[in-house]
Amino acid sequence: MSKLRRHRVIERRRVYSGKIVGLEVDRVQIDGREHVREVVRHPGGVVILGQLPDGRIPFVRQHRYPMDEVLLELPAGKLDPGEAPEASAARELEEETGYRAMDLQLVHRFYSSPGFCDELLSFFFSPCLVPGQSKPEEDEILEVELLGLDEALLLAEEGEILDLKTLTALYWLKATRDASTP
Amino acid sequence: MSKLRRHRVIERRRVYSGKIVGLEVDRVQIDGREHVREVVRHPGGVVILGQLPDGRIPFVRQHRYPMDEVLLELPAGKLDPGEAPEASAARELEEETGYRAMDLQLVHRFYSSPGFCDELLSFFFSPCLVPGQSKPEEDEILEVELLGLDEALLLAEEGEILDLKTLTALYWLKATRDASTP
Repeated sequence: MSKLRRHRVIERRRVYSGKIVGLEVDRVQIDGREHVREVVRHPGGVVILGQLPDGRIPFVRQHRYPMDEVLLELPAGKLDPGEAPEASAARELEEETGYRAMDLQLVHRFYSSPGFCDELLSFFFSPCLVPGQSKPEEDEILEVELLGLDEALLLAEEGEILDLKTLTALYWLKATRDASTP
Repeated sequence: MSKLRRHRVIERRRVYSGKIVGLEVDRVQIDGREHVREVVRHPGGVVILGQLPDGRIPFVRQHRYPMDEVLLELPAGKLDPGEAPEASAARELEEETGYRAMDLQLVHRFYSSPGFCDELLSFFFSPCLVPGQSKPEEDEILEVELLGLDEALLLAEEGEILDLKTLTALYWLKATRDASTP
């Protein structure tokens, strides 16, 4: 594995430190040649696939500023400073959807864009949601939508779900459910 | 939908323009209150899940600078200026793995991190790879690995695959294959 990790950092420049992201630009040397590495720093986050007793899954529809589009996504959010992923998942789920998870199972951890960003997401599954108390964040404007898995997968096939973490979670559930069906 | 899209941009500041990413920091007004929106700009990219005649899938193992880890991923890359996603997919696949796709099917387009980044990825599937000619990019150092789908899914379950787009593609193939099995 060592031959894949053979860079040497010559200089690190902090270009930006913000509310959600930071940006570093490094000069690195690999095999005697100099390269630039641009790195977006992110605190990490969570995404939650939960199911009500009838199997329906809470989604949120919200405006996403970077592409100026309204996207349909699973509830998600970034970690607060010092916050554990599981606590964050419980908080974000209830804040965004008004449902509470009786049981949160960590399914996967993954990097959303490993080529240029260190954002690590923890994906939780909850098979048993109950009504909680909705407290949307002050600058969050969203609509909750309840969809069955097959309904959501159809929307995905039709290109109506454009969020990568949401697609992963849906296909994971589909693959898992199919595998457990005799 | 209009109630979800009601911001007004007060000021846009270009903080950085680089080789792969750009960074903009906007001041926006929503319902009379001012907020900051940090946006990472990215040219977009591709990811390719291809299968050899025996069903094996080419993966690449490479060092990812942002987290200083070696990750196992499907071949992928960013779009060159003016390059169509399909041409990019054909190019990246052959450059990274040495295999050529006889047929590239666009399965999905998705945003990797819609909360703060506009990166749009096109995911292609190719059921029929043939040997091509490998031409790794000058600053790309990677190892090619051939894995069956079940083998790859086992690695995913064990937490050995940490790249989100790779997980999506694998679970998509698993879900699709299971659905077509009588």
